[in-house]
Amino acid sequence: MNERIAALQEWLTQNTIDAALITAPENVFYLSGFLSDPHERLLALAIFPDAEPFLACPQMETEDARNSGWDGEIIGYSDIEDPWDKVKKSVADRSISIKRLAIEKEHMNVERFEKVNAIFSVPDIFPAEEKMRQLRMVKTEDELAMIREACRLADFAIEVGVNEISEGKTEMAILAAIEYELKKAGITEMSFSTMVLTGINAASPHGTPGMTKVRHGDLVLFDLGVVYEGYCSDITRTVAFGDINEKQREIYDTVLQAQEAAVAASMAGTSCSEIDLTARRIISEKGYGEYFPHRLGHGLGISVHEFPSLTETNPLILQPGMVFTIEPGIYVPDVAGVRIEDDILITDEGYEILTKYPKALQII
Amino acid sequence: MNERIAALQEWLTQNTIDAALITAPENVFYLSGFLSDPHERLLALAIFPDAEPFLACPQMETEDARNSGWDGEIIGYSDIEDPWDKVKKSVADRSISIKRLAIEKEHMNVERFEKVNAIFSVPDIFPAEEKMRQLRMVKTEDELAMIREACRLADFAIEVGVNEISEGKTEMAILAAIEYELKKAGITEMSFSTMVLTGINAASPHGTPGMTKVRHGDLVLFDLGVVYEGYCSDITRTVAFGDINEKQREIYDTVLQAQEAAVAASMAGTSCSEIDLTARRIISEKGYGEYFPHRLGHGLGISVHEFPSLTETNPLILQPGMVFTIEPGIYVPDVAGVRIEDDILITDEGYEILTKYPKALQII
Repeated sequence: MNERIAALQEWLTQNTIDAALITAPENVFYLSGFLSDPHERLLALAIFPDAEPFLACPQMETEDARNSGWDGEIIGYSDIEDPWDKVKKSVADRSISIKRLAIEKEHMNVERFEKVNAIFSVPDIFPAEEKMRQLRMVKTEDELAMIREACRLADFAIEVGVNEISEGKTEMAILAAIEYELKKAGITEMSFSTMVLTGINAASPHGTPGMTKVRHGDLVLFDLGVVYEGYCSDITRTVAFGDINEKQREIYDTVLQAQEAAVAASMAGTSCSEIDLTARRIISEKGYGEYFPHRLGHGLGISVHEFPSLTETNPLILQPGMVFTIEPGIYVPDVAGVRIEDDILITDEGYEILTKYPKALQII
Repeated sequence: MNERIAALQEWLTQNTIDAALITAPENVFYLSGFLSDPHERLLALAIFPDAEPFLACPQMETEDARNSGWDGEIIGYSDIEDPWDKVKKSVADRSISIKRLAIEKEHMNVERFEKVNAIFSVPDIFPAEEKMRQLRMVKTEDELAMIREACRLADFAIEVGVNEISEGKTEMAILAAIEYELKKAGITEMSFSTMVLTGINAASPHGTPGMTKVRHGDLVLFDLGVVYEGYCSDITRTVAFGDINEKQREIYDTVLQAQEAAVAASMAGTSCSEIDLTARRIISEKGYGEYFPHRLGHGLGISVHEFPSLTETNPLILQPGMVFTIEPGIYVPDVAGVRIEDDILITDEGYEILTKYPKALQII
């Protein structure tokens, strides 16, 4: 039994819930170490306050599940078996009657919910998401090792992208080169669709990479992340191609100042809202408040967006082990768009910046 | 009002269902022409037997929705509004009381289902998936134009991949080159994770592309697809790098013979099972039956896997306008893996092969 499952069991006991049926792949991975997404096929981890947990997965994945380090029971099912029959039997084998059940309400679909109600006689349902988010919010050293490597690869990706910039090259050609180099290095998955936006494309909240060409005087924005062993990084850098004008420069300097101030304010005991407001005040004072329309940042780990959420209203207090992005941006339509983003770890002493690509304005 | 919505309305009328609330992005796209996936935010198309339908989406997407060609009502909501309040009001504005409601049970999550039950006083629920699958199964000329282009790009991708093969190059390096060329051509999305597998990697049903190097005497398998304007292609080719042995050759020839026979048998009035069995019998007669462990193929369109499903037990009769893959394979562990896949359109006269890359054994 690992500590993560023990923590969930404690929560079940405190709330007198008979079982948690965890089916979101990222939560199953977090609790069991088994990373898999069999899509429409059932992947489920059943946790009980006192009984042995079990993992249900497609028969062809049982070997992978065992090799992942999960040492609890594994229940495989073939494509001609009903996995819910096996779940029902495994619960019955433990002499457990489920009257109160925790599920991920945002993940479980209605079809599965009907099955759950049928096999467990319509139990009272409790949401499991909030507890899972809390557990995942504070990272262990093992998790940080993966995130550090994902961040190192993200730095490398930015370096590739910046080196690719030249007059007339399209956003997609630069994006293609970044992912080409990562794939050659064996990276099979990005955290999200890579963004390379140039000129006024970067100034639109709707901007998506396309066949727009880099032109002298453009600011070029890169936003990307790499998945390493199931953990995500997320970085944004904006660089200048040739001489930029005073307005572009002012926007860049303002974003950088806001970003660095928010990073410097990051420490255990401070609230998420305070960090957001540290950056937001600077941007507002410079008159760009209305052009910073999004939250300052978000937690990341197994998911590229997880807790904590750094908004101007979130009272959550930062703790050592939390990892999140700090990514202020200013987007003035038809003028310029700048965003600068790092991944930050809260430590006992303060903070550590996990993404290390330089932030001083780079003129290519 | 378009014909697709009219067909869904007819189904609602026939089943005396008061409304359909469609929330799966691919079904919203099919019915409205608006392609969007706002993830945790609500995207919903409400269809009624007699009243005007409406589309609900995030406020920032309303302009895109209008530009997509949807000429019905659009209800935007901001991040501080509850979209369900607006849905409830729009239904009430139509003086409709929803007692019987169709939803996609495989798509709607429990959290949303609880909202639906709260605002519509626990209506009787009917699954909408089956009807949507039926509607989407027969393609229009407009849809075929997109699929043809997606197939043309898939042919190009195979050509790039085959030209990249050389001694000692890794699977990931070849895969990277394929996606690099597609991105440079402006293609932003693949139908699924591209596969390049060499040697015995291609012989494992668990094979994923990695740092394995192509060696003289390998069979190299490519399986990939391209998304063009929301429509998918899917192609597999297997080529030989240098001299292959007699066993590899026999496996290739058997798969090709089975594939071509199944294609030739494809015509309106034939059942899915008959097409599957046409290929399966040939492979079994050559003694490889146990090494062909999957169905012959699947429909494709907006989703890379949709109806019809070509299995040995599916009695569904083919109709003109259906598009599906024919992709027999033989995987002998530690010996060789071969799969050959085309996308096929059923026409009034017989069939048309949409993927055109050559299938005769190619020795690089």
